[in-house]
Amino acid sequence: MANFLSLKNFEKNELLKILSEAKQMEQNLYNSNTLFSSKILTAAFFEPSTRTKLSFFAAAQRLGMKTLDYLPEFSSLKKGESIEDTIKILEGYSDILVIRHYEEDIFSKLDTSIPLINAGNGTDEHPTQAVLDLYTIQKAFSKIDGLNFLIVGDLKNGRTVHSLLFALNNFDVSIKLFCPQELKLGKNFFSALDQDFLKRISYVSKLELTDIDVLYMTRIQYERFKGKKPKGLEKLYRLNPSILSKAKDNLIILHPLPRLEEIPKEVDSTKHAYYFKQAKNAVPIRMAIISYCLKK
Amino acid sequence: MANFLSLKNFEKNELLKILSEAKQMEQNLYNSNTLFSSKILTAAFFEPSTRTKLSFFAAAQRLGMKTLDYLPEFSSLKKGESIEDTIKILEGYSDILVIRHYEEDIFSKLDTSIPLINAGNGTDEHPTQAVLDLYTIQKAFSKIDGLNFLIVGDLKNGRTVHSLLFALNNFDVSIKLFCPQELKLGKNFFSALDQDFLKRISYVSKLELTDIDVLYMTRIQYERFKGKKPKGLEKLYRLNPSILSKAKDNLIILHPLPRLEEIPKEVDSTKHAYYFKQAKNAVPIRMAIISYCLKK
Amino acid sequence: MANFLSLKNFEKNELLKILSEAKQMEQNLYNSNTLFSSKILTAAFFEPSTRTKLSFFAAAQRLGMKTLDYLPEFSSLKKGESIEDTIKILEGYSDILVIRHYEEDIFSKLDTSIPLINAGNGTDEHPTQAVLDLYTIQKAFSKIDGLNFLIVGDLKNGRTVHSLLFALNNFDVSIKLFCPQELKLGKNFFSALDQDFLKRISYVSKLELTDIDVLYMTRIQYERFKGKKPKGLEKLYRLNPSILSKAKDNLIILHPLPRLEEIPKEVDSTKHAYYFKQAKNAVPIRMAIISYCLKK
Repeated sequence: MANFLSLKNFEKNELLKILSEAKQMEQNLYNSNTLFSSKILTAAFFEPSTRTKLSFFAAAQRLGMKTLDYLPEFSSLKKGESIEDTIKILEGYSDILVIRHYEEDIFSKLDTSIPLINAGNGTDEHPTQAVLDLYTIQKAFSKIDGLNFLIVGDLKNGRTVHSLLFALNNFDVSIKLFCPQELKLGKNFFSALDQDFLKRISYVSKLELTDIDVLYMTRIQYERFKGKKPKGLEKLYRLNPSILSKAKDNLIILHPLPRLEEIPKEVDSTKHAYYFKQAKNAVPIRMAIISYCLKK
Repeated sequence: MANFLSLKNFEKNELLKILSEAKQMEQNLYNSNTLFSSKILTAAFFEPSTRTKLSFFAAAQRLGMKTLDYLPEFSSLKKGESIEDTIKILEGYSDILVIRHYEEDIFSKLDTSIPLINAGNGTDEHPTQAVLDLYTIQKAFSKIDGLNFLIVGDLKNGRTVHSLLFALNNFDVSIKLFCPQELKLGKNFFSALDQDFLKRISYVSKLELTDIDVLYMTRIQYERFKGKKPKGLEKLYRLNPSILSKAKDNLIILHPLPRLEEIPKEVDSTKHAYYFKQAKNAVPIRMAIISYCLKK
Repeated sequence: MANFLSLKNFEKNELLKILSEAKQMEQNLYNSNTLFSSKILTAAFFEPSTRTKLSFFAAAQRLGMKTLDYLPEFSSLKKGESIEDTIKILEGYSDILVIRHYEEDIFSKLDTSIPLINAGNGTDEHPTQAVLDLYTIQKAFSKIDGLNFLIVGDLKNGRTVHSLLFALNNFDVSIKLFCPQELKLGKNFFSALDQDFLKRISYVSKLELTDIDVLYMTRIQYERFKGKKPKGLEKLYRLNPSILSKAKDNLIILHPLPRLEEIPKEVDSTKHAYYFKQAKNAVPIRMAIISYCLKK
């Protein structure tokens, strides 16, 4: 039994095993539905979600599991219950818990006897998203080492970017970052990365695709802004098709979605658009992560 | 693999096959739960629903399928995602999609590699409802040809009526229509019907049951009214029990439900009341339609 | 087939059988998932719930059943449907219905051909909670007869207390009650209890634990207050750890949860805290109750 809460210092070996199990899961998507058929997965999402919750449910169902959906909107939170109590209760009904919460330190408050999966904790991390990002890259290039990344958007608040960088810290890749000035990564962020890896990260001041293998776009996380909310920041890095003309032939564009205006619809029909394939990979990856947590 | 989006020009043969498969489904309601046991049905309802969504889920579960419920209220739509993106994502997790949306032309915007079922598109159609209406009629009379219909209520906005008329266009039936003046069928509507069939449709000015075999009542769709909302329009065609005294012995009363005041509760206990049986038929019919979409 | 609506005059024999079946269910929690695998349990909750609905779903899933969740917030109630109609519809899709409603007399309005389970009717009863309370007590003491109870909190509005007292009416126990003056049991309440049992019930004016075996705490049901809402009434009976110093060694503390401030967090780590174990017992007890309803 293991939790899956963060990719910070996550063992490379374990990560590669999850990627490889996901491949098995994908090949047996319709033949795995008895693997964990007596188990219940419960989702407790305290922030809105489409992809993450439903793909966890789909993953659980493909594994033969049952699912419970705790909806804070309809619950005893209204009667004044603490989150610690709520999670203790859900623990009693379930075999594994998937939690999304708006607080960064939520998991330090929880102590359960069943595995916990982090489906997003505030602006901190979204580790299962990063594993599916890696999986998509590995499927496209048959490798991760040696690739050049350009990561674009709201680096400060984008938890998927944080987890992705923690994951990439294990690989021999080069990374360019591009974002609005005020949305750079927090200074503390870098302390969790290897010195070696840090040398291969740099900010750039233009959305330029020469040499780039993986373009990782993200939306502005407006819901995280406190006080005055600027508008249309994503226009600063909108991926106009003209920019793509200078891209490598096998550039892939990823996006954790949802997107706003940073990727116009015209891009969808290009060979570079991998974000819907990426979204679909959520199911086998989350099957592999559930399996990792239950079996380990 | 086939979509099920409209009954306009739907082949009579196919329709009869669905009705006949529904009969099989009903007889094996408790023995069909391995038929599609590795498949996931996802509902994406952008308008409220009780019957349609839950009966699709019940149907899927009776077929052994798993279900996902996309709730726009809790989703990334809040983050500004387009419906096309949302559906593309759901497609990646599912084997079949059931969609209800407030736009009439929603399905022309969607392009998926898995079957789509229309569970109501604005005021346009609600084709699975019409098939269950037919099924109820066929069970009651062992035939459809030769019957006399009186269809009552909000003909303009009632999408179940539209689909029912498209379905009946295949049969040798006679149809009377009764509705408030401002709620007649749109002029364009008739262009999709056969000339022959049109000759057997006429408006009447009274709720009179002589010779009628099937009375199809509908509520006023107040939520479709723009601007000023009139009240109590259904009082114009309230089915007072006294009206029933002139009915044929085997008249059946159908209603897609929910009802407002057009059918008073006293009618429920009469032998003519078929609307709850009709509602229950939703399950085998939707089993048959899911099966049609997945197998075809 | 049987309903499970009230513990008023419920046969002791039947109650003991349910407790004993729950024990079987708990021992076979992961091996019961084919018992009712063709059946659908539908929840229709018209008041918020965490524990009750999700534990019913978990129980149904552990029995191999499928589940449907009727959410009034997203339904045709918005179109003006009566609850009687809604329940009739749900009956057509389901094999068993679990209903929570804010009206005390809701079940007298409903008439279905499938079993109904009361998951809370206004301030009246919450019978499945009381059975899981008994189950927890029986597991802790290997008996119920002979125990001393102290029941504390909102006795007037707390439906779990009402059902618990109806259940305990079958046993040879002594019961002390402690509550704010205005939250005593209604006078009519006692008429349903045996004379013999009444002699062993009394109000006390202090939260004192000497001789007590089972301390049953409840929160103030503020949502039931009409008009002016007092605040912090639970401070009158807050279980400060100092009070516990005088408790019997094997005192157990129960609470139907959610709790407000009546049980401070420090109590959680004492040997007396049984409320989370109690919550977990919801699953086997509700499995046994579902089984009772379907098989009887």
